Amino acid sequence: MATVNPPRGMRDFLPADKARRERVLAVIRDRYRAHGFDEIETPVMEEYGRLHAGIGGDNEKLAFNILKRGLDEQALQAASDPADLADLGLRYDLTVPLSRFYASHRAELPSVFRSVQIAPVWRAERPQKGRYRQFVQCDIDIIGDGSSRAEGELITATLDALDALGLAGAEVRINDRRALDAMLDVFGFPEQDRPGVLITIDKLDKIGPSGVAAELRERGSAEDAVAGLEGFLGSLPEDPADPFGAAQIRSMLPAGVPDEIVDHLVGIGEAVASARGEGATPLRFDPFLVRGMGYYTGTIFEIAHPSVGYSLGGGGRYDGMIGRFLGSDVPAVGFSIGFERIVDLVTLAEREAAPAVVLVHDRDVPVAELLAHKARLIADGSRVRLERRPRNLKGVLERAAADGYASFATVAAGQEDLEFKPLD
Amino acid sequence: MATVNPPRGMRDFLPADKARRERVLAVIRDRYRAHGFDEIETPVMEEYGRLHAGIGGDNEKLAFNILKRGLDEQALQAASDPADLADLGLRYDLTVPLSRFYASHRAELPSVFRSVQIAPVWRAERPQKGRYRQFVQCDIDIIGDGSSRAEGELITATLDALDALGLAGAEVRINDRRALDAMLDVFGFPEQDRPGVLITIDKLDKIGPSGVAAELRERGSAEDAVAGLEGFLGSLPEDPADPFGAAQIRSMLPAGVPDEIVDHLVGIGEAVASARGEGATPLRFDPFLVRGMGYYTGTIFEIAHPSVGYSLGGGGRYDGMIGRFLGSDVPAVGFSIGFERIVDLVTLAEREAAPAVVLVHDRDVPVAELLAHKARLIADGSRVRLERRPRNLKGVLERAAADGYASFATVAAGQEDLEFKPLD
Repeated sequence: MATVNPPRGMRDFLPADKARRERVLAVIRDRYRAHGFDEIETPVMEEYGRLHAGIGGDNEKLAFNILKRGLDEQALQAASDPADLADLGLRYDLTVPLSRFYASHRAELPSVFRSVQIAPVWRAERPQKGRYRQFVQCDIDIIGDGSSRAEGELITATLDALDALGLAGAEVRINDRRALDAMLDVFGFPEQDRPGVLITIDKLDKIGPSGVAAELRERGSAEDAVAGLEGFLGSLPEDPADPFGAAQIRSMLPAGVPDEIVDHLVGIGEAVASARGEGATPLRFDPFLVRGMGYYTGTIFEIAHPSVGYSLGGGGRYDGMIGRFLGSDVPAVGFSIGFERIVDLVTLAEREAAPAVVLVHDRDVPVAELLAHKARLIADGSRVRLERRPRNLKGVLERAAADGYASFATVAAGQEDLEFKPLD
Repeated sequence: MATVNPPRGMRDFLPADKARRERVLAVIRDRYRAHGFDEIETPVMEEYGRLHAGIGGDNEKLAFNILKRGLDEQALQAASDPADLADLGLRYDLTVPLSRFYASHRAELPSVFRSVQIAPVWRAERPQKGRYRQFVQCDIDIIGDGSSRAEGELITATLDALDALGLAGAEVRINDRRALDAMLDVFGFPEQDRPGVLITIDKLDKIGPSGVAAELRERGSAEDAVAGLEGFLGSLPEDPADPFGAAQIRSMLPAGVPDEIVDHLVGIGEAVASARGEGATPLRFDPFLVRGMGYYTGTIFEIAHPSVGYSLGGGGRYDGMIGRFLGSDVPAVGFSIGFERIVDLVTLAEREAAPAVVLVHDRDVPVAELLAHKARLIADGSRVRLERRPRNLKGVLERAAADGYASFATVAAGQEDLEFKPLD
C-alpha cells in the first residue's frame, strides 16, 4: 500500500494547528487592512514562460511545473526539454503574479495600489528542518509610488502587525542596491563583476571581512579593489554612534555615493518616525545588506527580531519588473513576512467569539434528544462538539481543550438541563 | 509580449471581489465551526498514484499533473506515458485528500471526526460560463459514524449555513445508492449492467421516463426490465401527498427494497427535524437521484434552492473509500457546498468591524504630517486609505465605497483637524 503521508516536504494541518495558523493570519490581515492594503488573489498557476523568464532568480529552478493535458505518445517522444511538456507552473513567489495582475488590471485599481496577498507558494527545495515545499507568504506591496513614503508605509504596517502578534521590538535592517553599486564603483569593481561580488559580500555575516576579501581574491577581483573594500569593512564601527539618519548613513559609506540615495533612506526613516511616534527608531542602516533576488532596483530591507537569529521577512524596490509585463515602468516596492518563521514564535490566546462546549453523551441517548440539545446551544451562540462517552474521558477532554473548547456537560437519556463544567 | 491574463479558465480577484468572497467564507466557516466541525488543511498536491487510483471517477482525467523535477533528456526520451513524467498532481476534490489525511492521522483525531475543509481544487475542464479550472469547495465530512445521525448533522449544518447567508428555503433531495441498486434488482437488471443503467437514469430530469426507456433499449437492456422500470416511473406522483417519512418513501419505491435502507432515510429525517425544530421538513425523497461519483455506497443528497435551477451542493456516504487507504473500512459521509455557485447569489452587507476612511491629500502635504494622521486614525481603530487628490475625485471615491470605505476627509498641509464626510 502506498504511503498515507503528505507529499515530501509538505504538511497536513490538524485542527489545533490549523486554528492557530488562522488566528495568526487573521491578526496580520486585520493590521494590513487597517493600513489601507487591499487583499487580492491570483490563481496558484501562472504560464510556464512567465515563471521562467529570468525574473525569479534561483526560484525558477525550484518551480513545480504542470504537465500539458492530453499529451499522446508521439508528443512525449518529440519532447527534448521540460518546456515542451509543461505549459503552466505553480508560483514560487507572490511578486511575479502580482506584477502580472497589476499589468492586467491597472485601469481598475487606485493610482497608488496597496495590495496584500496571503497565500501559499511552492518550491521544490531539498526538504530540511523549517523549510517546506508548500508554505504561506504574507506580502504587502505598494505600486505606483516611487517616493520614500512607500517604504515608510510598508515598514510601519509590518511593524504594527508584528506588534499585534506580540513580537514588538523588531528591527529593520535597510540598504539600497544603488548604494551597493556605487560603493563597488568607488572601490573599482567593474560593472560586469558586481553581481558576483555581491554574492560574496552577502556572506559577510558568516565569513567576516577577511573571508570576503579572500573569496574575492580567489574569484580574481583586482587587488586594489579588494584591498579598498577590505580596509573599509574593517573601519566600520560595530554599533554606529549616531541615530538613524543622514550622519549615520554617510559615516558608513565611502565618499562618492550620490546624495539622492542617502536622501531616500533618510526619508524612509522620517516617514517611519512620524507614523510610529517618538522613541528609538526601529531602522538600522546596513551598507552590506544584499538580499538575493536579482530584480531589486533600490531600497532593500530585512526584519530581525531579538528572539531569533534569522530574518523574519524582507523586501525591497523592484521598479523595473512591472515594465516587463506592462511595457512601461511603474515603481513598486514590497515587504514579505516569512509566515512559517513567525507562526511558531507567536503565542496568541485563543480568542473565542463564542463559548465552545463538548457534550459527552451516553450511547442510549436518542438522536433526536441529542441533536435538539446541540441545536439549542448553537442557537444560543455556542460552538458544540458531540462525543460519545469514551473509555478514556480524560484524553477526549484534553484534545477538546487543545481544540479550543472551554467546558463540557454529560448528557443522559431524558435529561433536560445540562450542567457545564470547565475543561482543564 | 505574452498575455497578462491569468491562465485559461482561472480568475484574478480584485479587492472588492476578494472581500466579498472572504465575507461569505467567514459566514460558512463560522456556522460549520458552531456545529462542531474542525477545520483541517492538506497540501494542494497528492501523489500521482493516489489521484489516479480509480477513486476520482471522471475527475481523474481532468487532473493537473506535476512534472517530475530534474528530468534529463534521457528520461524524457524514455517516457511513453504521462505517469512516467509526473509524480504528483493537484487535487481535483477534497474527499480523496481527506481520506488520505484521516488514514495518516487517525490516532490524533476524535473517534467521530467532523472535519471542515475550505480550499481550492483544480480540474482541467473545458472552460465555460460559470465553470472554472480553479474553484473553491467547502466540504464538511463526518468520519467514524455509520448511523443516520451523521447525515442529520451534515444536512442541519449545511442548511444553517445557507440560512445565515440569506439563502433560507433550501430543499435537500435525498436517496440511497442501495435503494437504487435494490430497485434495479427488482426490475431484473443484472448487476454488471447497473452502473451503465444509472448513467441513463441520471438523465431522467432532462429526457423523461420515455427517454430513459428508449436509451436503455438502445443500450440493449432486457425488455422486461425496461418495461418494468418505465411503468414504475410513469406511476410516480409529481408531488407525494405524505410528508417525508416511511410512508412517503415506501410509496415511491417498488416492493422488495430492504427495510434497513428505508429506516436509515427515515432516521435522517427525524434527526434533521429534531435539530431544525417543527415546521416543513426540508427533505424530499427522490428515488431516481443518482449523483455521479462511483465511490458512494449509501445515502446521497443534493441541495436545491427555489432561486436557481441548479444544485447548490451535494454529497453522500462513501464508507468504502477510507479502507482503501487504511486497510480497514471506516464509515464516512460528506456534504460539499458549491461555493462558486452560491457566492454570486449571496448579498451580504459588508460588516465592517472598524470605520474605514479615505484621506484625500494635496500633493504638498509633508509625508510626516500625512503618515501621522494615518497612524492616529489606525490607532483609534480605523482602516485608512491614502489617495493623492486626483483629477477625478468622484471616481476615486466610488471605488473606495465599492471597497468598503465609508467616509473621507481632505487633508491640506498644516491642517490639524480632519472633517469626515460620508461616501455616497
